[in-house]
Amino acid sequence: MNTVDPAAPTVGLTVPAKVGDRLEDVGTPALIVDLDAFERNIDRMRAFCAAHGVRHRAHAKTHKSADIALIQMTRGGACGICCQKVSEAEALVAGGVTDVLVSNQVIDRAKIDRLAALAGRARVLVCVDDAGNVDDLSAAACRHGSMLECLVEIDVGAGRCGVAAGAPAVALAKRIAAASGLKFSGLQAYHGGAQHLREHAKRRAAIAAATGQVETTLALLKGDGLDCPIVGGAGTGTYRFEGTSGVYNELQAGSYVFMDADYQRDLDEHGHPVTDFENALFIWTQVMSHVRPDRAVCDAGLKVQSVDSGLPVVFGRSDVVYVKATDEHGVIDDPHGALRLGDKLKLVPGHCDPTCNVHDWYVGVRAGRVEVLWPVTARGMLL
Amino acid sequence: MNTVDPAAPTVGLTVPAKVGDRLEDVGTPALIVDLDAFERNIDRMRAFCAAHGVRHRAHAKTHKSADIALIQMTRGGACGICCQKVSEAEALVAGGVTDVLVSNQVIDRAKIDRLAALAGRARVLVCVDDAGNVDDLSAAACRHGSMLECLVEIDVGAGRCGVAAGAPAVALAKRIAAASGLKFSGLQAYHGGAQHLREHAKRRAAIAAATGQVETTLALLKGDGLDCPIVGGAGTGTYRFEGTSGVYNELQAGSYVFMDADYQRDLDEHGHPVTDFENALFIWTQVMSHVRPDRAVCDAGLKVQSVDSGLPVVFGRSDVVYVKATDEHGVIDDPHGALRLGDKLKLVPGHCDPTCNVHDWYVGVRAGRVEVLWPVTARGMLL
Repeated sequence: MNTVDPAAPTVGLTVPAKVGDRLEDVGTPALIVDLDAFERNIDRMRAFCAAHGVRHRAHAKTHKSADIALIQMTRGGACGICCQKVSEAEALVAGGVTDVLVSNQVIDRAKIDRLAALAGRARVLVCVDDAGNVDDLSAAACRHGSMLECLVEIDVGAGRCGVAAGAPAVALAKRIAAASGLKFSGLQAYHGGAQHLREHAKRRAAIAAATGQVETTLALLKGDGLDCPIVGGAGTGTYRFEGTSGVYNELQAGSYVFMDADYQRDLDEHGHPVTDFENALFIWTQVMSHVRPDRAVCDAGLKVQSVDSGLPVVFGRSDVVYVKATDEHGVIDDPHGALRLGDKLKLVPGHCDPTCNVHDWYVGVRAGRVEVLWPVTARGMLL
Repeated sequence: MNTVDPAAPTVGLTVPAKVGDRLEDVGTPALIVDLDAFERNIDRMRAFCAAHGVRHRAHAKTHKSADIALIQMTRGGACGICCQKVSEAEALVAGGVTDVLVSNQVIDRAKIDRLAALAGRARVLVCVDDAGNVDDLSAAACRHGSMLECLVEIDVGAGRCGVAAGAPAVALAKRIAAASGLKFSGLQAYHGGAQHLREHAKRRAAIAAATGQVETTLALLKGDGLDCPIVGGAGTGTYRFEGTSGVYNELQAGSYVFMDADYQRDLDEHGHPVTDFENALFIWTQVMSHVRPDRAVCDAGLKVQSVDSGLPVVFGRSDVVYVKATDEHGVIDDPHGALRLGDKLKLVPGHCDPTCNVHDWYVGVRAGRVEVLWPVTARGMLL
């Protein structure tokens, strides 16, 4: 952990703390990382992948941090990193990541050009679901004298990007294999729609169906003499299914490193909330108004989180409930008047990925002290 | 408009365009501002305030841009600017704003200290709803030899911050008036809960009730010999009511400058959507996958907007509908197959304030060309 030690920034406009500060003195609102829980999450995913003989390509769209990506690759044993944007990939490579999959389509020619340039500095993979796009990628790779590895994305149920499994996927794989500057490196078969199916049996069935579609495609590829070194997919909600499928060999879970309130609503086979990973990420917030005895107002509203997957949960407290988010405020029901003006609380974000996306810093805390500050390296990298 | 001309940044990691680019070449996803519509919105608000003899203190929590704030004060005639955070106020003052109200409580002592320091460089006002907070603000102002103007916030129906109207507000005003380093400058009576009541009659009734509470408080203040130079409040949904009340004298609307899909669902007295202001802000997005003929996927998902108030609306198109947002993707129903891979679209954000909060740049466009790039000066200023 201490190998990552950026020059300590000056506490100021956007920097909520300095190394050595006590947790209670960290400014609000801010993202804090419980480093012990974070490390346990990383260790658990490494152990799972080792036990099942699969690789982990950790998804950086969760955290957008080069520092965390490097920890996932070193301590966590990840073979590489996923991200979603060319600009994210550029920022991660600049931060030391050597192997990056843009697990998304890149259509715009200016972005394709940057991607092909980046492939001269790191291993770069990208997803494809369109034949014309293959031609554009090939032309750019040839122009830069670089090699872009391509995964054919198949839509295994999410209803978003990707061609149909089977013949359409194979046709695209052949086109890639025949294109200069490109390499067909496998299949992208991520089922985004399955991650938050609450029932264990439903998630299992969704991934079984996805796996079947992958197997069909693999058989056709084999029949055509095409190697498929990567079968990638899986998220924090389903990684156990892909990881034990015998078909997927590269898991792309990202949220596992932090967990969030929405993923914790997924249920295990006994109907209990999944406990594979711990909450390691919190919004640190302060009670800034408490006029009515039964209602506190904190400084964590819509600008420090995304509430698309529900409101945040007050961590470790059953006596107070976060009930409403407006732009700059969170309203907290405090029926027993337990909170005081100035009190600070930890909130578990409803959805970690778009929450991290609005912050500039992670404040890493251990034993009540700030141990490290990590910039959100790729924050704002939308292009 | 041309008085604001920051050094053109290099198009790159987070910069989607350069001055002179054609709109169709602007990178996606990005925020674009229709400068003609933007200026008409500013002119309309200025005309309204002039006609009704009220001041406009434009709310910068919408845009977080010093450039736009200065345009609101010059072209728009605004008397000053509102914001919600001390760090925002610092960024706006650094950008040239000379008169700023933090329309929020500032409780944390480190922030109070910065606020008092800032009051040595600009006119600074802040809201108060706690007696102990008055003492802390006074101590800091004395320490810095500065003067903080305080507005007593009263809860006129939003159920969030603020003391009760009447005697509690007067008690707080007296405490401020008696405190060294502070000045009692008036009342903050913003009704956040009324802005999005769809029916005109309900919004009118809510502001009438709020106005009544303000009048009660004003009468008591007068009885105690306390001047109340500012009666502040109002948002884009209700500004006509406060502005014609004869009681409020400083309007704080912010969203008017951009408008968003949620505000456009408010209805006028005839039951039609309000048309006081035009859409001037758009998320510029590209179709990045279009495998199924009836479904396009664009590159504007949860990380380029907030969907707390509903999904974005495709501008100027009735044939396609944005139906789902995931982290990095927007799914668009395209029943007639009207869209092509690579097509670019304008989306009207569901809620502009937290949408602007995730971007670094506004791309100002006029007649199909990029005229100006404004940084989102106070983006990330949470503290």
